[in-house]
Amino acid sequence: VANPIDDRIEAITQLLRRGGRGERDLQELAGLAADVPTAELRYLVQSIPGPHAAILFRVLPKGTALAVFEDLSAGEQADLIAALRSTEIADIIEGLDPDDRAQLFDQLPASVADRLMVGLGVDERRMTTAVLGYPRDSIGRYMSPEFVTIQQSATVGEALQRVMARIDEAETIYLLPVVDGSRRLQGVVGLRRLLATDRGALVGTVMREATTALAVAPREEAARRFLAAKLLAMPIVDDEDRVVGILTYDDAVDIIDEEDAEDVARQAGSERFAGSYLAAPIWRVMRSRIVWLLVLAVSAILTVQVLELFESRLEQVVVLALFIPLLTGTGGNTGNQAATTVTRALAVGEVRVRDLPKVVWRELRIGFLLGLVLGAIGFVIASFVYGPPIGAVIGLTLVSICTMAAVVGGVMPIVAKKVGADPAVFSNPFISTFSDATGLVIYFSIAALVLNLS
Amino acid sequence: VANPIDDRIEAITQLLRRGGRGERDLQELAGLAADVPTAELRYLVQSIPGPHAAILFRVLPKGTALAVFEDLSAGEQADLIAALRSTEIADIIEGLDPDDRAQLFDQLPASVADRLMVGLGVDERRMTTAVLGYPRDSIGRYMSPEFVTIQQSATVGEALQRVMARIDEAETIYLLPVVDGSRRLQGVVGLRRLLATDRGALVGTVMREATTALAVAPREEAARRFLAAKLLAMPIVDDEDRVVGILTYDDAVDIIDEEDAEDVARQAGSERFAGSYLAAPIWRVMRSRIVWLLVLAVSAILTVQVLELFESRLEQVVVLALFIPLLTGTGGNTGNQAATTVTRALAVGEVRVRDLPKVVWRELRIGFLLGLVLGAIGFVIASFVYGPPIGAVIGLTLVSICTMAAVVGGVMPIVAKKVGADPAVFSNPFISTFSDATGLVIYFSIAALVLNLS
Repeated sequence: VANPIDDRIEAITQLLRRGGRGERDLQELAGLAADVPTAELRYLVQSIPGPHAAILFRVLPKGTALAVFEDLSAGEQADLIAALRSTEIADIIEGLDPDDRAQLFDQLPASVADRLMVGLGVDERRMTTAVLGYPRDSIGRYMSPEFVTIQQSATVGEALQRVMARIDEAETIYLLPVVDGSRRLQGVVGLRRLLATDRGALVGTVMREATTALAVAPREEAARRFLAAKLLAMPIVDDEDRVVGILTYDDAVDIIDEEDAEDVARQAGSERFAGSYLAAPIWRVMRSRIVWLLVLAVSAILTVQVLELFESRLEQVVVLALFIPLLTGTGGNTGNQAATTVTRALAVGEVRVRDLPKVVWRELRIGFLLGLVLGAIGFVIASFVYGPPIGAVIGLTLVSICTMAAVVGGVMPIVAKKVGADPAVFSNPFISTFSDATGLVIYFSIAALVLNLS
Repeated sequence: VANPIDDRIEAITQLLRRGGRGERDLQELAGLAADVPTAELRYLVQSIPGPHAAILFRVLPKGTALAVFEDLSAGEQADLIAALRSTEIADIIEGLDPDDRAQLFDQLPASVADRLMVGLGVDERRMTTAVLGYPRDSIGRYMSPEFVTIQQSATVGEALQRVMARIDEAETIYLLPVVDGSRRLQGVVGLRRLLATDRGALVGTVMREATTALAVAPREEAARRFLAAKLLAMPIVDDEDRVVGILTYDDAVDIIDEEDAEDVARQAGSERFAGSYLAAPIWRVMRSRIVWLLVLAVSAILTVQVLELFESRLEQVVVLALFIPLLTGTGGNTGNQAATTVTRALAVGEVRVRDLPKVVWRELRIGFLLGLVLGAIGFVIASFVYGPPIGAVIGLTLVSICTMAAVVGGVMPIVAKKVGADPAVFSNPFISTFSDATGLVIYFSIAALVLNLS
């Protein structure tokens, strides 16, 4: 099936690769890019090398360029900025919202950020500085300082007038923070509620309780609360309850996207790297993986040492070696299932740290039942091929390993949370390595017992 | 640190466990529950047995009860419904939005759903039926049929009048679908835009292009597009472009939450189970894990057979067995890192199926570099302890296994997507098992070569 958009994307990639930089090449490029949707342009910019992306970027109409730029992650934006000329950069920077600009500045070398800051208008600079004043990873970095508050003592009619006066500059007008005389947050009111209410009523009588966050609060916590409550916007306050900004839902979605990507990477034992997968240099992707891979490989030396302890038993019954990958693999899988379930339940608040005893008791029973099923099958198959004594060793080991792995997998994320670490730190590979070593000890102990080895 | 809310939750749990059902017990319960926030009440309902949840639910004020109920997943709602009396149920059902009601009815036994449907008012019943008319897992099931459209040919003033007339019933008024005379969708316009525009202007001149979805489209696809574009609402159309409903952002967030939970579970080789972790019966959690665990254990028999092929080599050099868990574990970790990165890149659209050759080439180089680092370290350590020949075997095997595993891990999700399967189907445990078997073949081939085994 021919897809005209795919063809255009292919043609653009080819043209850029040919390296044509003449006036006619650029015109052809502009023509090709003209009908490509923003989402596809973003994909293109993400998947081609930086210098190519910069050339493509130059031929886009200004509005389209800004829309594409806004959709990139801060890391990708920084890469693109590095490839653009300063005059081109100034336009883009001026067009960004203050909170997005702060994100970008964080990713740029300080000297570049300072230079760009100087180029901004007074208002834009003031607002960007305000956002940059909060700690990295705090929600203050993501809020918009362009908000409209209304007075508790105002009438609904006055409030609507105020909203209409600020309609062009405010980040959102659909949810409005309500404040008292000293600018302290008292509640919020939706625009819909205002519109549906008699104009003479007082705002204080129609507002409802606000879900808020401190500007210095961790971004993930605030964004999760935001999305869990399905808010349109959330007032951000200082420690005296004064409104300092507003968080809108697009910012909350961005934060959760990034946090999820981090968690997913960490579960697989890697770090996130800045930029998109296809455009990032090989060494950057490699660096994101090597540290954990090394840590895990070094911990896996434990399994070598455990096996060395049992080397004489292995020499007596070499057939025991055949089952090592099957047994450790099954233990790892069981542990990972439990860890994944509990990590998720912790993240969405279904499980709390105080539920640890309940989780142990549940996983103990679940792991034992899983082990019974697998152990019975393992006993039958292994007995048939290698005789009942080996069958008994395999069956009993599966029951023990599954029980142990399910409990360890269920407990680890809660322990991590209890000591204040990210539950995803005890990632799946970590649990696998741990259950490998423990599982081997169980295996050879049972084998020694059943087969009467010394 | 004493937390008054935690104390109350503990007291509620104790009271329910004691089994007191008298008038005074219920009054005490109502008093304890009075100041507990909705989110904590939801956690309580999720973490205690169904009959206890039903008792707690009864003593909550009607508004609070509905808020808690709305925050539960459809599966949890169905569990709770099963424990409540019919008169109590009727109130809850009537209070739900038509789309949420349809989700719940899906989880209930057909006879119960039918009975509840009869109890609804004519309008509520009509709208619920409309939503239920679309296929399961289609976005039509999640849209709201309570929307306001405006005519392209209307003036902004007329449009605002129409919005004001429907302000109480519509699901949202912040984004409005614009239609022509035959009710076909022409675009959308935000309420803010309308308010900021001269009342005499025509709606057709201020509307913008709509992001839409067909009512029969898969829910995940539509919801991902929704959140990627950070929309407030999205008109849902039939195949003649007529508006049949509107999707709001809370519905999109719910869908993505569920899909993510499914993906996360599948990555770890389990299925999602209905209900919350702590309240679900043990057998339900076990059932969600046993199938994949069995499939994986049976595939792992492959590793036993591979090792059996090399049994004579193992008997000659038993020390080779010591490294099996380390080598297979490292291969599994490398493969999972690659698979996780590529699966994520596919999900967010950074990588397309046509990028397969690029991915292979990238992972080949990344895997080789990772293997070089690990192989060098492995060579040094193993040479030192077991002599240079064993060191050489371990080093060379690590290089080969890392390269192979990174490529396999990177390719699998793309192949899955190409054949129309969920990329998460080739889950991490599956890749581990595959790379275990391949890795062992590599290991013993290199060992035979270097150590001159027969």
